[in-house]
Amino acid sequence: MIRTGPVLELLRSRRGSPVHIVDPFKVPMAEAVEKAIAVERLGHPALILASTDYSRFDDLMSAYVAAVKDAVHLPVILHFPPRQGVGFPLVAAADAVMFPALLGSEDDYFVWKSYLDTLASLHRRGIGPDRCPEVLLSAALTFGPDEVTYDALRALPISGAATLRFLAEVIRLLRFDLIYLYSRSAEVPPHVCRFLRENIYPEQLIFVSGGIRSDEQINACFDAGADYVGFAGALERADWRVVLNTLCPAGAGARAAS
Amino acid sequence: MIRTGPVLELLRSRRGSPVHIVDPFKVPMAEAVEKAIAVERLGHPALILASTDYSRFDDLMSAYVAAVKDAVHLPVILHFPPRQGVGFPLVAAADAVMFPALLGSEDDYFVWKSYLDTLASLHRRGIGPDRCPEVLLSAALTFGPDEVTYDALRALPISGAATLRFLAEVIRLLRFDLIYLYSRSAEVPPHVCRFLRENIYPEQLIFVSGGIRSDEQINACFDAGADYVGFAGALERADWRVVLNTLCPAGAGARAAS
Repeated sequence: MIRTGPVLELLRSRRGSPVHIVDPFKVPMAEAVEKAIAVERLGHPALILASTDYSRFDDLMSAYVAAVKDAVHLPVILHFPPRQGVGFPLVAAADAVMFPALLGSEDDYFVWKSYLDTLASLHRRGIGPDRCPEVLLSAALTFGPDEVTYDALRALPISGAATLRFLAEVIRLLRFDLIYLYSRSAEVPPHVCRFLRENIYPEQLIFVSGGIRSDEQINACFDAGADYVGFAGALERADWRVVLNTLCPAGAGARAAS
Repeated sequence: MIRTGPVLELLRSRRGSPVHIVDPFKVPMAEAVEKAIAVERLGHPALILASTDYSRFDDLMSAYVAAVKDAVHLPVILHFPPRQGVGFPLVAAADAVMFPALLGSEDDYFVWKSYLDTLASLHRRGIGPDRCPEVLLSAALTFGPDEVTYDALRALPISGAATLRFLAEVIRLLRFDLIYLYSRSAEVPPHVCRFLRENIYPEQLIFVSGGIRSDEQINACFDAGADYVGFAGALERADWRVVLNTLCPAGAGARAAS
């Protein structure tokens, strides 16, 4: 729980890669499997399954994760918001689960007490410590107007230099494994990413996602210091293979390897 | 784990009281029982069992807590540092257990990851969520030179206005139940206590302890905004009853009631 596991090791060693985010509550399982195969071929280091909203999580997700894992060797990382009394939803078959600490939330549950809720409820949920996926401690910051996230998690968008300085210091103090910068309605400001890169520990990873629709955007995020750039909605269309090839040109590989 | 329990409710309602801290690894059980009876008669709201050092915790503490609880109605609160792989030591018979988050530690384990370690190991330790004492989330800050605490917990003394401002903001963000200010070698500076009182949420309690030897000191801590003033070593002597009467004059009662 508090030691570095294989997924974090892998992520630390493969910095500079795009990563695809599949919403299992929108994308049919068979399509997710095809996408997983496609991004594995492109050299992505992992696949993220994520959604702000979910219901009957365990019913769907056990089969969904199993189907993906049957098809690829990629680690599957879960990234879902917690719910009071349960904490973060998770299935044992996943390789890792992000615990987002929403440092911009008005509600201390979403700030971090969901961590305690999750761990206290794991055994009751039938998931012993030996069956729990690797936990990735993630400081999650959101940018730009976002009513959906506010309604679900009481998270306010981060803005202002003083707030950013404070949060960088908190992220160092608490030594999160990674920070996850997200903008639902716009883009994560590059200067924010750059400031955080310069003010957190080198081993702390930066994920950026939200509104990513082009390889230029992906490269701009890397230039601003992102380690991983996530895209989700860009592939939620029938011609996703075409889009994927534009976003991640074959042969481009991970930036770290270039 | 993340809801307010009866001990925190009680502590919130009885602000302005001295509280005695017994080191079970120094004070014989029978003497602890007599002291518990004495402080209950004086109107103290709780008894704290605490030590920086301990060994064979469960063997001693189950009997120790049971003996105290047989003699008094006072809630018994445990306050011990965590150890890697186990987390905070605790016995189910206690009413509450403080989880100190050592915000001044160089080691993120002692800063807060011990929380995760504790919760992940509880079941393995035979303590289900229903048997776990109430958890008090405590931001622990130390003051003045203290090699013992540094060696055990990598905690550096807090100093400087900027650090204090930052920590107050962290304490608000993470909404700890209480803050515990401690000085092993000197006293907690009154201006620090006052600053924190003015810069944390009103419901967050302040405990002050370390070097308390007189009722003047206790009153000075209350004047600086402390809710509870703890004393331990002052009663580690044969004539502890005399000292106790000087420290907590009978009839003085809790400040909140005066």
